[in-house]
Amino acid sequence: MRSEKINLGEKDKKNWQQIKKAIKSKKPLIHQISNYVSANDSANITLNWGALPVMASAPEEAAEIVESASALLINLGTLNQERLQAIYKAAQKANQLKIPIILDPVGVGGSDFRSRAAFKILEEFQLTIIKGNRAEIAFLAGEKAELKGVEAVGEYKDLDIAAQKLAQKQNCLVVVSSRVDILAAKNDIFYSEWGSDLMGKIVGTGCMLGTTLAVFAAVEREIELFEKIKTALVYYGFAGQKAALQAQTPAKFKREFMDTIYQFAHN
Amino acid sequence: MRSEKINLGEKDKKNWQQIKKAIKSKKPLIHQISNYVSANDSANITLNWGALPVMASAPEEAAEIVESASALLINLGTLNQERLQAIYKAAQKANQLKIPIILDPVGVGGSDFRSRAAFKILEEFQLTIIKGNRAEIAFLAGEKAELKGVEAVGEYKDLDIAAQKLAQKQNCLVVVSSRVDILAAKNDIFYSEWGSDLMGKIVGTGCMLGTTLAVFAAVEREIELFEKIKTALVYYGFAGQKAALQAQTPAKFKREFMDTIYQFAHN
Amino acid sequence: MRSEKINLGEKDKKNWQQIKKAIKSKKPLIHQISNYVSANDSANITLNWGALPVMASAPEEAAEIVESASALLINLGTLNQERLQAIYKAAQKANQLKIPIILDPVGVGGSDFRSRAAFKILEEFQLTIIKGNRAEIAFLAGEKAELKGVEAVGEYKDLDIAAQKLAQKQNCLVVVSSRVDILAAKNDIFYSEWGSDLMGKIVGTGCMLGTTLAVFAAVEREIELFEKIKTALVYYGFAGQKAALQAQTPAKFKREFMDTIYQFAHN
Repeated sequence: MRSEKINLGEKDKKNWQQIKKAIKSKKPLIHQISNYVSANDSANITLNWGALPVMASAPEEAAEIVESASALLINLGTLNQERLQAIYKAAQKANQLKIPIILDPVGVGGSDFRSRAAFKILEEFQLTIIKGNRAEIAFLAGEKAELKGVEAVGEYKDLDIAAQKLAQKQNCLVVVSSRVDILAAKNDIFYSEWGSDLMGKIVGTGCMLGTTLAVFAAVEREIELFEKIKTALVYYGFAGQKAALQAQTPAKFKREFMDTIYQFAHN
Repeated sequence: MRSEKINLGEKDKKNWQQIKKAIKSKKPLIHQISNYVSANDSANITLNWGALPVMASAPEEAAEIVESASALLINLGTLNQERLQAIYKAAQKANQLKIPIILDPVGVGGSDFRSRAAFKILEEFQLTIIKGNRAEIAFLAGEKAELKGVEAVGEYKDLDIAAQKLAQKQNCLVVVSSRVDILAAKNDIFYSEWGSDLMGKIVGTGCMLGTTLAVFAAVEREIELFEKIKTALVYYGFAGQKAALQAQTPAKFKREFMDTIYQFAHN
Repeated sequence: MRSEKINLGEKDKKNWQQIKKAIKSKKPLIHQISNYVSANDSANITLNWGALPVMASAPEEAAEIVESASALLINLGTLNQERLQAIYKAAQKANQLKIPIILDPVGVGGSDFRSRAAFKILEEFQLTIIKGNRAEIAFLAGEKAELKGVEAVGEYKDLDIAAQKLAQKQNCLVVVSSRVDILAAKNDIFYSEWGSDLMGKIVGTGCMLGTTLAVFAAVEREIELFEKIKTALVYYGFAGQKAALQAQTPAKFKREFMDTIYQFAHN
C-alpha cells in the first residue's frame, strides 16, 4: 500500500530549495536521446523543472550537442541503429567532458538488439545513474527478468540486493522505479514510498523520471549525488501523490502531475 | 446525423463484460509499429483499455518482440524504409505464430511508396482486420479514392459493398471508420452510428481505433471475432459520444474521451 | 512587459474573417516535415485552424505529397539524414509548383550538421517565410548567436535590423518569435506584443507557430502575404493571451490555448 503521509521531511525540503535555486540560476541543458513515444512528455517535464531540453538524436550532431549540455539522458525506447550510433558518440563525449550520463534501459531483456546495446553501454561508458523498472534492473543485474513489452511483470525478491550489486559493478547509482522506488549506491540504500498508482496508468512516467534524475544530476555539486537523487525521487513521487488528490483518471491526472511539478519549481 | 440514442444494447454490454474480464486477466501485449505523430496516444489508449503497449519498430527486433505479443498492429503513418522492413519481419512472424494482424493503411493512395507497401502487405500476409478511412478502404478495394494528406475527402457510394469485396478478397474483416462506421465480413455487415463529430477534430482517433481493434482481437477466443470487433466499434464510438457531453472543444474532448475508455475498463 | 490590451484592431478582425472563410472553403493541406517531439501538436493545431495536416517525411514520398499540398513546412528539429533528404526533395518540388515554403530552422547554430543543412536550404530554395527564435534568426543573419539546445539565450540588440537584412537577402518574410514578435519584410516591419509568457513554458509553441504561418500562407491570395502573416501573429498571440486568463500552469494552459484557436476558427 502507498504511504498515507502527505508531509515531506525537513531535510528533503531544504535540499529541494537549494536544488531549485541551482536549476533557476544555471538553467541546465539536458540532452536527451530518447524514444518518439514519450519525447514530448520528457521535453515538457524538463521545462517544468526549470531546465532546458534538447532531443537531438542524429549521429552527425549528438556529440557536439553534448558539449553544451549539463547532463546526457540515454533512453533505449524505440531504439534503432541510427539512434544507437548517436548514443555511442554522445556518451563518449560526455565521459570525456565528465558530464553525468543517466541510462534508462527501456525494454532491455525484451530483445537481443536492445540487450546487446545496453550491455555495450554498461561496458564502454562510465554511467552516473541507471534507472529502470523492476524487470530491467533485474535483467541488467543478471537476475531472471520477465518483461511484457516494456513493462515489468512478475515478482522480484531481493531486488534491492540486485540493484546494489549492479551499483557496485558499474560504480554508479541505481534507481528502481516501482510501487516503492529503490535508490541503491555501493554502500547505501534508500526506499521511497511516495507516488500514486495512477503513475503506472499513463505512458511516459518512467521516461519522465529519467529526465527528472538528469535534471537533478546536472546541478549543485555541493549536495552529494545520492542526496540529490533521493530528493528527486521524493519530489517526483510527491507530485504524483498530490496530483492524485485532484484527478482520478489518467489523462486528467497527467495534466495535474505535470503542472504540480511546474508549481514546485516556480513557486 | 448522429444517433441520438445513449443506451447500449444488452448484447453489447454482455460482450463487453466478457471481453473486459479477458483483458484484465490476460493483460495482452499489443505490438504496434506505428507513426511518430500519434504513437503516444496509441500507447496510452492501450493502457486505458487495460492492455500493454510496445512500440518497437527497428527491423533488428520487430520479429522477436512479436513472439511475446497477442496482436500486431501495423500503421503506415509517417512510414519510412526502416519501419517498413520492421513491418515485413514482424508480420511474417505473426503469421507463423497465428497472432492476429491489424492493418491501418494510413495515407494509402497518397503516394506510390505507401500504396506499394500496402499492396505488398495485402499480398504476402494473412491479415485479421483492415481498418481505414473511406478513401483508404475504397483505394484498397480498387475504387477511385480521394485523399487530402491522410484524410478522406469526397463522397463514396456503395462503400459497404467495396468493403465487403475487400473482406472477401483478403479473407479478413474490414472496418471503415467514418460518420457511420462499417464492419464488413465476407457474409456479414454491421453499421455503427455511435460516435461524435469531435472525434474527427483531433489527430489520432483513427490510429487509436486501430489500437482498440488490436486489443479486442487479442483476447477471448470464445466470442467470435466479428462480435468482438462490433463491440469494439460500439464502445469506442460510445466513449466519443459520452465525452462529447462533457467537452465541446478538441483538447478537452480528447482528455474526456481517453478517460472515458479508462473508466469503461476499470469500473 | 506584455501588452495589457485585450481588444483586437478592426483591420485584424476583418482580415481574419476573410482568411477564416478561405480556410473553410479550401481546407488547405499543409505538408509538414517536422520533428518527432512536437509532431502531434503541430498536426492538431493544423486541424484547429481548419486546415489538414500531413507529416510524411520519407524521401520516397516527400515530393509526391507536396503535389497535393498548399504549403510546405520545413522544421529542422530532431533532424536526421533521412528527413533532410526528404526536405530537399519536397522543397524542390514546392519551388517548381510555386507552393509556399515556410522554414523553421530549429536549433540552427547548435550543431554544424544543422547549420549546414539550414544554409543549404537558404541557398538552394526560394523560401516564403523564415520563422525562428531570436538566436536562430540572429545566426542566419550572420550575427553572433547564443543557443542552449533549441532555446535562444542572451540578449540581442537590433534584432529587427538583422531580421530585415535576412529578409532582403533571402527575398522572403522573416518572423522572430519572442516576447515581442517581429515580422520583417524587405521594406516593412511589424511588431506584435500579443502573447503570454506561458507560451514559453510548454514545448511546441514555436513549432505550432510555424504551422500556423503555413496555414495562413496557404490561402487567400487576395490579401497580401505580409498582411496575412501579421494577422497570424496577432491571432496566435491573442489566443495565448486569452488562454492565460483561464489557466496559469503549462499543461492546463496548453489545452486552453489549442482550444481557443479551435474556437477562433469554428465560431
